[in-house]
Amino acid sequence: MSVSQQVFLRDAMRRLNLTRDVFAARIGVKRRALDTWLLPEGSQEARSMPEVVTRFVTEIVDNEALLKKYAQSAQSGPLRDRIAADGKHQLLSVDQFSRESVEELFRIADLMQPIARRQKVSRVLEGAVLGNLFFEASTRTRVSFGAAFCRLGGSVCDTTGFTFSSMAKGESIYDTSRVMSGYVDAMVIRHPEQGSVAEFARATNIPVVNGGDGPGEHPSQALLDLYTILTEFSRLGKLLDGAHVAMVGDLKYGRTVHSLIKLLALYRGLKFTLIAPRGLEMPDYIIEQASKYGHVIEQTSSLEQGLVGADVIYATRVQKERFADEDLEGYTADFQVNKAIVDKCCGPDVIVMHPLPRDSREGAHDLSVDLNDDPRLAIFRQADNGIPVRMAIFAVLLGVEGLVQHSLRDVTWSPPSHIGPDDSVFHGMD
Amino acid sequence: MSVSQQVFLRDAMRRLNLTRDVFAARIGVKRRALDTWLLPEGSQEARSMPEVVTRFVTEIVDNEALLKKYAQSAQSGPLRDRIAADGKHQLLSVDQFSRESVEELFRIADLMQPIARRQKVSRVLEGAVLGNLFFEASTRTRVSFGAAFCRLGGSVCDTTGFTFSSMAKGESIYDTSRVMSGYVDAMVIRHPEQGSVAEFARATNIPVVNGGDGPGEHPSQALLDLYTILTEFSRLGKLLDGAHVAMVGDLKYGRTVHSLIKLLALYRGLKFTLIAPRGLEMPDYIIEQASKYGHVIEQTSSLEQGLVGADVIYATRVQKERFADEDLEGYTADFQVNKAIVDKCCGPDVIVMHPLPRDSREGAHDLSVDLNDDPRLAIFRQADNGIPVRMAIFAVLLGVEGLVQHSLRDVTWSPPSHIGPDDSVFHGMD
Amino acid sequence: MSVSQQVFLRDAMRRLNLTRDVFAARIGVKRRALDTWLLPEGSQEARSMPEVVTRFVTEIVDNEALLKKYAQSAQSGPLRDRIAADGKHQLLSVDQFSRESVEELFRIADLMQPIARRQKVSRVLEGAVLGNLFFEASTRTRVSFGAAFCRLGGSVCDTTGFTFSSMAKGESIYDTSRVMSGYVDAMVIRHPEQGSVAEFARATNIPVVNGGDGPGEHPSQALLDLYTILTEFSRLGKLLDGAHVAMVGDLKYGRTVHSLIKLLALYRGLKFTLIAPRGLEMPDYIIEQASKYGHVIEQTSSLEQGLVGADVIYATRVQKERFADEDLEGYTADFQVNKAIVDKCCGPDVIVMHPLPRDSREGAHDLSVDLNDDPRLAIFRQADNGIPVRMAIFAVLLGVEGLVQHSLRDVTWSPPSHIGPDDSVFHGMD
Repeated sequence: MSVSQQVFLRDAMRRLNLTRDVFAARIGVKRRALDTWLLPEGSQEARSMPEVVTRFVTEIVDNEALLKKYAQSAQSGPLRDRIAADGKHQLLSVDQFSRESVEELFRIADLMQPIARRQKVSRVLEGAVLGNLFFEASTRTRVSFGAAFCRLGGSVCDTTGFTFSSMAKGESIYDTSRVMSGYVDAMVIRHPEQGSVAEFARATNIPVVNGGDGPGEHPSQALLDLYTILTEFSRLGKLLDGAHVAMVGDLKYGRTVHSLIKLLALYRGLKFTLIAPRGLEMPDYIIEQASKYGHVIEQTSSLEQGLVGADVIYATRVQKERFADEDLEGYTADFQVNKAIVDKCCGPDVIVMHPLPRDSREGAHDLSVDLNDDPRLAIFRQADNGIPVRMAIFAVLLGVEGLVQHSLRDVTWSPPSHIGPDDSVFHGMD
Repeated sequence: MSVSQQVFLRDAMRRLNLTRDVFAARIGVKRRALDTWLLPEGSQEARSMPEVVTRFVTEIVDNEALLKKYAQSAQSGPLRDRIAADGKHQLLSVDQFSRESVEELFRIADLMQPIARRQKVSRVLEGAVLGNLFFEASTRTRVSFGAAFCRLGGSVCDTTGFTFSSMAKGESIYDTSRVMSGYVDAMVIRHPEQGSVAEFARATNIPVVNGGDGPGEHPSQALLDLYTILTEFSRLGKLLDGAHVAMVGDLKYGRTVHSLIKLLALYRGLKFTLIAPRGLEMPDYIIEQASKYGHVIEQTSSLEQGLVGADVIYATRVQKERFADEDLEGYTADFQVNKAIVDKCCGPDVIVMHPLPRDSREGAHDLSVDLNDDPRLAIFRQADNGIPVRMAIFAVLLGVEGLVQHSLRDVTWSPPSHIGPDDSVFHGMD
Repeated sequence: MSVSQQVFLRDAMRRLNLTRDVFAARIGVKRRALDTWLLPEGSQEARSMPEVVTRFVTEIVDNEALLKKYAQSAQSGPLRDRIAADGKHQLLSVDQFSRESVEELFRIADLMQPIARRQKVSRVLEGAVLGNLFFEASTRTRVSFGAAFCRLGGSVCDTTGFTFSSMAKGESIYDTSRVMSGYVDAMVIRHPEQGSVAEFARATNIPVVNGGDGPGEHPSQALLDLYTILTEFSRLGKLLDGAHVAMVGDLKYGRTVHSLIKLLALYRGLKFTLIAPRGLEMPDYIIEQASKYGHVIEQTSSLEQGLVGADVIYATRVQKERFADEDLEGYTADFQVNKAIVDKCCGPDVIVMHPLPRDSREGAHDLSVDLNDDPRLAIFRQADNGIPVRMAIFAVLLGVEGLVQHSLRDVTWSPPSHIGPDDSVFHGMD
């Protein structure tokens, strides 16, 4: 088997769309045995899966794949060709993904996990240079992309700040993009104006990743959000089909929720409850789009009502800087997601997410810090997932995803077993 | 043969100073055969050159070199010793170059082309650290130097902005330079004040490259400009000796044209037409210097008159920020190089250059975008050449140019065949 | 012998606390022979030490170590566990060190010298990423940490400037630290507020290095200062025990001298003369602390009086930006350390240090430039030592110090024999 046991099994469950319980039953093994096979290599309780199970699962997946192949003739060739934007290997929007292609990307993100968790090192992109062009400050996103590229062995050239020196002198985006393309092998672009990343992308044939274009898109964030939900659900024994997702906060300007809802709409039978203060409701066109695919959408301005029975709470920060002059009267403490309301409205299996940063100042009404040591708070696991997902994006766009597996070496240094002092340890579950 | 066939042939033609046509005649092969031997390895139409041709060309070049050796006893030892500034391996001014040494540098730049074109990877400077010190914002130059160093396997530490924290506290250039020299293995310095890079260079023995010192010099730009002209001329079957170069725009403050004219003056029998608005004419001392070497120099304020018959049009931006209060009345739309005037005054073999950035805003009168898909527009090929030329500069100053050839490995990722969507493909010519 | 001869001998002398003269006498060899064994590999005059000397020294050191082991049971396990802060592999304060552990760190810094001097290259941290987070500008410190990490083979992600974009949006240090920890393998943090680096450190389990927290600590500076004194003393044939250290300038706000005095207090019988203008005297609690350990401390406002007989002069800059409104009348030209006063008060073996930057502007009264070509001026050797000491800190905190020795390769490029044109060459002494 060329990939690790965990990657193999997680991919199989995703393809077959089965929870751990149902999958264990399908192949006739105990749930507990399956859990130990899914532990990261090197965990004390990890066990090797018998060869016969490998063969059985392979056959099931192959049969399923065969059926799908007859149904969809479109899916063929490398992933980067199937998700291409205008024929180019660029990631500009979540609209480039189907359910199949997004899950294929996540299979590659799973391959990256041993690197992201500092068990393995890869130099597969040695010699490649990333242009990390941030025309708008966003330290965490910039470092996340940069670190992901470095972990594949590449080098990073950063530019930061609102003014790109040559653009201040009247240089067009066309010229800037084409010139930078002669220097680097891929570009991540963050820009305050919607559409400008696409303009950059049109002027070059090298891979471009949209790192956020103002009120436009931020596809890598939506992808890591979906990856987080699927990974958490796998641990919790849930399927995304039929799940209940509650979104809270600024649903009007928050591009994160707009992109995430589009990706979630690729699944089946979801229920969305959208909880926003007056004036910050989700735009109608996004609601219509999601409804068209048969999802149930409910809007409310009552946090308590909207959270009841949720599987996922996705809280967002009200980005006051985006609407300085508008009225924010409706945005009160009643919108704060905290331990009390989560305990009251949701079960022990809910996960609480947030794209970060969250505003922890007094009176900000953002996601409360009183959940910090609660295992349901998934925000740091979510942020951590930025590394494997962005590594997968780079690997796919540069066409090296097939080389990663064989490029792995053991790390030389000794990383801590848990990077955060409050990180939850799920009793051997991953 | 230790170097690739193309590097060997291009170097031979440069040393013998022959066009492709004349060189093909000299060795008794068809021009078309020579063209196919000059294609990059991996092109569909590339062909291997017979061994007998290699031996023949080697003998011609050796004989020529022998004759030159008698004539000039100065040329010996490594290139970095011959171009040294005050005995140090530093690049501060184009004045450090002779025609022989600049062509030797370009031979090394040719060696770098497979890396710059993302066919090969080298790690020859692995472990070396570049201090990329930009006391004046210049994103493209900073990234170009940084990416060039990374492509040789080194690491880069950047500093940007007008204020270097310690210098704001009264630190001298002497201290800053000497302290940084203890941290890094080479420094690129960009500074708004003329002479300050030389001051940096005096305080250290490590390699220093002048990345532009205000109205002073910017030697790597002039070198990549000359390299571009020679490379384009090779494709077009022209020699630089006897060529006609038209320079347009701000010839008074544009340090780029000052340095370039000095380098071009190393060749023979050139004709320069200098086209500038009133008040922005080329300084007299530069004209005198070039005249001394027997070149013809004509000054005009009529763009049309100056461009007639040009082999190279070198347009520059009027750097309004450099003379805020002065009169710019003469700088009108009549100075704009655009498709109409190029078609009217020049042949199909002219090349249009610009040091970039160009001002593409309305009313800027800078080089027009209507040439963007015209193969005569060489500005992006020119910018691309910044990478191999800067790689060659680093390799020479650090003394690793002899190790590059044997350090090459294939790239692992799949770069696009052309990095710009509008890049000209010269029907198999390179 | 697994380490080089020089590392072995320097470590032995430090452990036995013997000068070169006494050590040579102890093992029955000529002082001159010992000096040649201590020269860097590759020096013309370097000689190999006979095997019998190795065995003899090993036995002496082992016996000494055995005696110490009975005396102190605490010392065991890897260095990073012994210097841990709250059980974590983090360097926040010099208080984490004992005399034994600081000397063990310096033994590792010695191991790094061939890399810092560009004779060898190591890639032992290949794949690791450093987050170099500077919330306050400090270019030299940032580049020194960054270059040190690069020289171990790692990659660096920098953030600079007073505003971290997400913190400006109300993000807590807890969130910022935990999120960055998911991206990188170690963090260096510089912050203008005392205690904030410790707050960063509490929110993560990955290695954190305090790069300076306002008036708080800057432990890597104090460590490289002590390393410099010990290294210079070794060359001069002096022991630190019983030495006379004069500190000059702003002793009230200068955190550098506070931390250094704490480290020096780990040694025995030192004499400190503290020379400060009125209002900038050393705080009482530090004087009391050092006195407690039996050191002699004298305070004076007369530079001449304080310098007489000093073995070390440690000058500091008066950081005017820290006390804009306070009275600085007492800070006159009488406080300037220059060649005249050093000649008058001190012998040929004094060393003059400064944490840099020094203010070289007229009227600044900082350390004079008239000592620049005087071999007693150790300020650039001191700055250079930042690289091996910071490499040692990273290697220890990440647990790779045992891998460095076997990871060394020769450099490919040709560094200058002396990086500064005025660098002193001590006639074969190192």
